[in-house]
Amino acid sequence: MEINGVLIEDTFAEAFPCWASMAVITAVTKTWAHKIAMEATGFATSCIGCAAEAGIDYYVPTDRTPDWRPGYAIMVCNPSKKKLKEQMVERIAECVLTAPTAAVFNGIPSAEEKLPVKLHFFGDGYEHQVKVGDRDCWAIPIMGGEFICEEEYGVVKGVAGGNFLVMSDNQMSALMGAEAAVEAIDELEGAITSFPGGIVASGSKVGSHKYKFMNASTNDEYCPSLKDKVPATKIPPGINYVFEIVIDGLDLHCVKKAMMEGIEAACGVPGVKRISAGNYGGKLGPFQIQLHDLFKI
Amino acid sequence: MEINGVLIEDTFAEAFPCWASMAVITAVTKTWAHKIAMEATGFATSCIGCAAEAGIDYYVPTDRTPDWRPGYAIMVCNPSKKKLKEQMVERIAECVLTAPTAAVFNGIPSAEEKLPVKLHFFGDGYEHQVKVGDRDCWAIPIMGGEFICEEEYGVVKGVAGGNFLVMSDNQMSALMGAEAAVEAIDELEGAITSFPGGIVASGSKVGSHKYKFMNASTNDEYCPSLKDKVPATKIPPGINYVFEIVIDGLDLHCVKKAMMEGIEAACGVPGVKRISAGNYGGKLGPFQIQLHDLFKI
Amino acid sequence: MEINGVLIEDTFAEAFPCWASMAVITAVTKTWAHKIAMEATGFATSCIGCAAEAGIDYYVPTDRTPDWRPGYAIMVCNPSKKKLKEQMVERIAECVLTAPTAAVFNGIPSAEEKLPVKLHFFGDGYEHQVKVGDRDCWAIPIMGGEFICEEEYGVVKGVAGGNFLVMSDNQMSALMGAEAAVEAIDELEGAITSFPGGIVASGSKVGSHKYKFMNASTNDEYCPSLKDKVPATKIPPGINYVFEIVIDGLDLHCVKKAMMEGIEAACGVPGVKRISAGNYGGKLGPFQIQLHDLFKI
Amino acid sequence: MEINGVLIEDTFAEAFPCWASMAVITAVTKTWAHKIAMEATGFATSCIGCAAEAGIDYYVPTDRTPDWRPGYAIMVCNPSKKKLKEQMVERIAECVLTAPTAAVFNGIPSAEEKLPVKLHFFGDGYEHQVKVGDRDCWAIPIMGGEFICEEEYGVVKGVAGGNFLVMSDNQMSALMGAEAAVEAIDELEGAITSFPGGIVASGSKVGSHKYKFMNASTNDEYCPSLKDKVPATKIPPGINYVFEIVIDGLDLHCVKKAMMEGIEAACGVPGVKRISAGNYGGKLGPFQIQLHDLFKI
Repeated sequence: MEINGVLIEDTFAEAFPCWASMAVITAVTKTWAHKIAMEATGFATSCIGCAAEAGIDYYVPTDRTPDWRPGYAIMVCNPSKKKLKEQMVERIAECVLTAPTAAVFNGIPSAEEKLPVKLHFFGDGYEHQVKVGDRDCWAIPIMGGEFICEEEYGVVKGVAGGNFLVMSDNQMSALMGAEAAVEAIDELEGAITSFPGGIVASGSKVGSHKYKFMNASTNDEYCPSLKDKVPATKIPPGINYVFEIVIDGLDLHCVKKAMMEGIEAACGVPGVKRISAGNYGGKLGPFQIQLHDLFKI
Repeated sequence: MEINGVLIEDTFAEAFPCWASMAVITAVTKTWAHKIAMEATGFATSCIGCAAEAGIDYYVPTDRTPDWRPGYAIMVCNPSKKKLKEQMVERIAECVLTAPTAAVFNGIPSAEEKLPVKLHFFGDGYEHQVKVGDRDCWAIPIMGGEFICEEEYGVVKGVAGGNFLVMSDNQMSALMGAEAAVEAIDELEGAITSFPGGIVASGSKVGSHKYKFMNASTNDEYCPSLKDKVPATKIPPGINYVFEIVIDGLDLHCVKKAMMEGIEAACGVPGVKRISAGNYGGKLGPFQIQLHDLFKI
Repeated sequence: MEINGVLIEDTFAEAFPCWASMAVITAVTKTWAHKIAMEATGFATSCIGCAAEAGIDYYVPTDRTPDWRPGYAIMVCNPSKKKLKEQMVERIAECVLTAPTAAVFNGIPSAEEKLPVKLHFFGDGYEHQVKVGDRDCWAIPIMGGEFICEEEYGVVKGVAGGNFLVMSDNQMSALMGAEAAVEAIDELEGAITSFPGGIVASGSKVGSHKYKFMNASTNDEYCPSLKDKVPATKIPPGINYVFEIVIDGLDLHCVKKAMMEGIEAACGVPGVKRISAGNYGGKLGPFQIQLHDLFKI
Repeated sequence: MEINGVLIEDTFAEAFPCWASMAVITAVTKTWAHKIAMEATGFATSCIGCAAEAGIDYYVPTDRTPDWRPGYAIMVCNPSKKKLKEQMVERIAECVLTAPTAAVFNGIPSAEEKLPVKLHFFGDGYEHQVKVGDRDCWAIPIMGGEFICEEEYGVVKGVAGGNFLVMSDNQMSALMGAEAAVEAIDELEGAITSFPGGIVASGSKVGSHKYKFMNASTNDEYCPSLKDKVPATKIPPGINYVFEIVIDGLDLHCVKKAMMEGIEAACGVPGVKRISAGNYGGKLGPFQIQLHDLFKI
């Protein structure tokens, strides 16, 4: 199968269940809401080494936020619901409560299950309850005015590890293809790409052949520079650079849609030669997303 | 004392020793180096609740980086040297090693003491040593090419908690004054402001009067909206909003310079009424930075 | 009438008919499309002194552009259809044809009337016709590849000079109120704000009392600093700073919607005291947009 | 000659004298100063079709501006001193005087020759003279406060048309190489790149072979897609895409330095194959900048 002359391999991405929660961060301007959301979702690329996977999902214009101010919806993910709760508390407490003009609201009000994020104790008794639209909130006096927040955040069983690989003979084409893919995914609601600029340059395998104390090491089968040294190389002839887009989403549909839009955008970039996806032969993740199926709709 | 008609209170900022390390992150373009540096320094506002305090310090143009590519120097701080080392390892491993076209170098080569950041094991034996300029580095094969890194990062006993308060009768003047201050500090090398957009809206006191299980709560004496309820209020008449700039630096000089430039910039913004600073009466921090002394140079 | 405690004056904005055309500029990434659109719409604040009024209207995601690449829709306006045609030709020829990976398409395909923008002669005979989706285009060989363009651009009788005034006792609140208004208008399709950052700091009146050779001079009745010197001042008590949002749109509905959304956003910013609008007593412009009517929907 | 494995052709860029003037635009924040400078330098790629060539030259931090506020230095160029004067007046009047919190100062105070930019008449008699640092300025009452400006702007005989070509077999490498070059030039004072994102995708030749009414058309000798059709092609084997960086500067030294830094940066981008330069065989421009000489310093 080809899109715009780019070969789409007949393979699948293997994805996993993962708890996901969302918050809508608002501020006096869109610019400020973005600064705060960036800080709150930083240092959160992969649960292998970070305490969470997180990213900005989408801009929420004034007519869709509870307080009629501009906002950004952020998504935070973790396989452990307990750790996800801790991360929601810490990221909101340290990066939003502290930020100028910020307020924060439940980002998945429709979710039945909710994570408690009890910030009002910070008010030391000076806090009071307020209604913002139909949301039950707390107003906490702070130096810069009042901080408004909800204390329950919807949590759902989402999907992590949706992915595809952008390949080229040259590095810049692969990079720009991946960048175009991330831009396309940014337009969608319900899916994030948690790595810097949304792109992964360095895939890992479980464990290490040489260093037994390492629980992850470079995925040598996917390193183009090793293709002549690694007999089991997965790198096709003519490919010298591979970038991966890894997607977390609220559900399988969101992840599939992000993969589809991302792949189409990557295929629009000159020099992109091939699209593939990462999997573990179907042994680990319960979700197998066939690349060719994405385009049968 | 007044600057541009703005009253500078006769008080001092109380600051603390803190270990600080730096890395220079380079990439194929300035834009990419910035994206990576943002991710690597996210979720790092205050060591009260984050694992580190971190921020982008300055842009390093091509003629000053070891690999002649554009870079950003980031600073990571923690009172514990052990935790600082862990954070340097994790932030570089998760947010830089994974990023497209990234390389990373020691940001304080002149420091005698160094933190080990052993990333080459990730190469699983395929890694090799390379010299980049005069730096001893490792080249690790990854999907997107090769990741180049040094493995020792200078660490110094820096200064954390330098600060000043920007006050106004109205919120937007206080906010823009604080924003101008952060912009001025961004121009300096050796000092960071780790909060979102560099500004703290919500100061805290140790412990809580009402909720004994809280080890920090809102600094009610500095909440303008509580000035009629809190007898010991520190809010002067006519002040309704306060934003704080908190500065970490490589040494006392860097912090003082940042405070001086930041205060001058804030005083250039219409509507800023008063500048003060936060301290604990001199009981906690060994460094007392008198605001008036900053301008005696 | 009040919105969020801000007084909305019972007055109207006076607006004028104006020819408007649009182009969709696409490029390899959203970032590049934005750079090109910024250049193409620069130096175009007011037809009083510029050759056109122009601005970026909205982002066009990949699934809505003819070539499935990311794009920005720009709007260019002029009371003279002849001058508008010249400006479309020059801005596209100088700022889009010259730009890396750019392509450009008719931004109002539904318009019956069209402006010719004959760029294919630049190809010196090497150009050829291509179909992009359902659009008839030319492909012109250039150094950086091929430039793709349509040669007819829809033109409609739009509305210029829609406006409102954001007022405060302090400058930063008025500025941030205006900034929030522009951010809200940026979300809408069919309306632009052509001034830097979308905000006008300096209104003008026709002619000059003192300097007879000037055909425009400061609108002294709206200068807060002159309110004690100008008997006919329009500045209400307590107001010291006024910023104006000027809106051009494809039709009256677009302009009204932009005014409504912009005013609501401005009223959400702390310190904004009053909203008014500019008019000439109904003597000049055929469109009178009553502020109060905007909120009767 | 090679840099980082990239062939530097043994040729020269041909450049021309051109009048250049500069203004320093300040505002309440760096962000606002940038917005205003962008508008003021828009629609100014090439004097072939625009009324000027213009661009942002460098950021001027608070301690280097006359009013101690953040600023950007812009450069405006035109072969005709009279047209340059008109453009300085119009761009400042329409794009700076109208902008929130803006002020504008002479950007080349050391220049002996000055262009008059008489804006104070806009004040209609309400304006007054003020001293800002050592600069003689006017304060003009406007809606948003007061507009501060100098009325004389230094003008020098600068150099236009400095250039080099970034070549690759693939488009994205050539584009990223050109982008890295522009980023490097952005760091320098005294030189601008006036095209969108600083890059020219479409070079032109004087006149047209086929269409006699055209005074410029595509430079077919430099179009890679025509290399098999144009016998006199200048495109070397293996090159499929060419982007040009065109530089205007205050003097020959500034242009040479920009070329040198830009070329070095481009050669650091993977996939860039070759650097050349554009000239007319030495027949037109009095300045011949040999590429190889740039690196003999």
